[in-house]
Amino acid sequence: MPPAPAPKGAYRPLLVAGGLAYASGHLPMRPDGQLVIGRLGAELDVAAGYEAARLAALGILASLRQGLGSLDRIRRLARLLGVVCATAEFSQHPAVINGASELLAAVFGPENGTGARSAIGAVSLPLGAAVEIEAVFELA
Amino acid sequence: MPPAPAPKGAYRPLLVAGGLAYASGHLPMRPDGQLVIGRLGAELDVAAGYEAARLAALGILASLRQGLGSLDRIRRLARLLGVVCATAEFSQHPAVINGASELLAAVFGPENGTGARSAIGAVSLPLGAAVEIEAVFELA
Amino acid sequence: MPPAPAPKGAYRPLLVAGGLAYASGHLPMRPDGQLVIGRLGAELDVAAGYEAARLAALGILASLRQGLGSLDRIRRLARLLGVVCATAEFSQHPAVINGASELLAAVFGPENGTGARSAIGAVSLPLGAAVEIEAVFELA
Repeated sequence: MPPAPAPKGAYRPLLVAGGLAYASGHLPMRPDGQLVIGRLGAELDVAAGYEAARLAALGILASLRQGLGSLDRIRRLARLLGVVCATAEFSQHPAVINGASELLAAVFGPENGTGARSAIGAVSLPLGAAVEIEAVFELA
Repeated sequence: MPPAPAPKGAYRPLLVAGGLAYASGHLPMRPDGQLVIGRLGAELDVAAGYEAARLAALGILASLRQGLGSLDRIRRLARLLGVVCATAEFSQHPAVINGASELLAAVFGPENGTGARSAIGAVSLPLGAAVEIEAVFELA
Repeated sequence: MPPAPAPKGAYRPLLVAGGLAYASGHLPMRPDGQLVIGRLGAELDVAAGYEAARLAALGILASLRQGLGSLDRIRRLARLLGVVCATAEFSQHPAVINGASELLAAVFGPENGTGARSAIGAVSLPLGAAVEIEAVFELA
């Protein structure tokens, strides 16, 4: 697991309130600390987008571990928002965001790691990122 | 009401946790199973977008009924996110998303069916969909 | 603080449920009632976007005060969604959304006014708005 990412602005990577853990929108950082940039439908294909979504979800896991001490405090994933930096013609957002969803399902199990989800296309994302993943978890 | 839509990826159409029902982003399916595709401000006008938003909200109702057994378990709509696939020049996102909001207000009543809402423009949506509607409901 | 903004469609500016206050997506209204319109990366620079985000957050404060009677009922900010109307090349979304985040941190204090956050780029927003800010608060 990578180190928990530093926030890019005036916010917290993770906020715990009312039995929920709110993970901020996380960007896809490679193990060497490089951000995955580019647009789906232009510079990046679906396989590269899937890997980017997986990396962003790894960052969420790192933020959860740092903020909660242990992933054992998570009961389940409630909701995930997957935002894909994309062209107007791109249509395979679900296949990209599966990179995040399938990682969380593997870590927390298919029952607790599969939640509600929306996947949408952004004209641009912070720092030119390819994807951004936000999630809300129910605590045990 | 249409049959509840199958998810387009590794997620659940509806997730119940902590007294809330989280409905995933739903796409606008016509009764014949065809997806409403296109962009507002280009191929689609506001009336077509309004109808698309209404269809997506019908899909949410179908998912609620399938997941909860009955719509009677809903106390109220808390929050709705309406995403419109649009051009850079389009500005009538609220009139489009009203297609979803007014359906929910009719079904649950104006008091319980009117919640908080955000409406935004996406450069593209899954499968080329015209709109995507996500919602969170408080359970009774 | 400005007057609380009227909703632009079939929704409530603020919805209270389950110990949370859901603020709808708020648009940036100047004190004279004019909406800040335009795209970041084109007509507007980061300083103008920062000010727009601050104005949208002022609208949220006005809606909270109108809906709750007093800001004292807020325990803390849980989550903020900042949507920037932007070009495909724009990448400074966090610096723009800081205009909202830093206002809330000043009003509620750095501990309670700093929450989880996502910042994304929209191809267009309602009425041509430059930014839209949505937030969820935990009540005391």
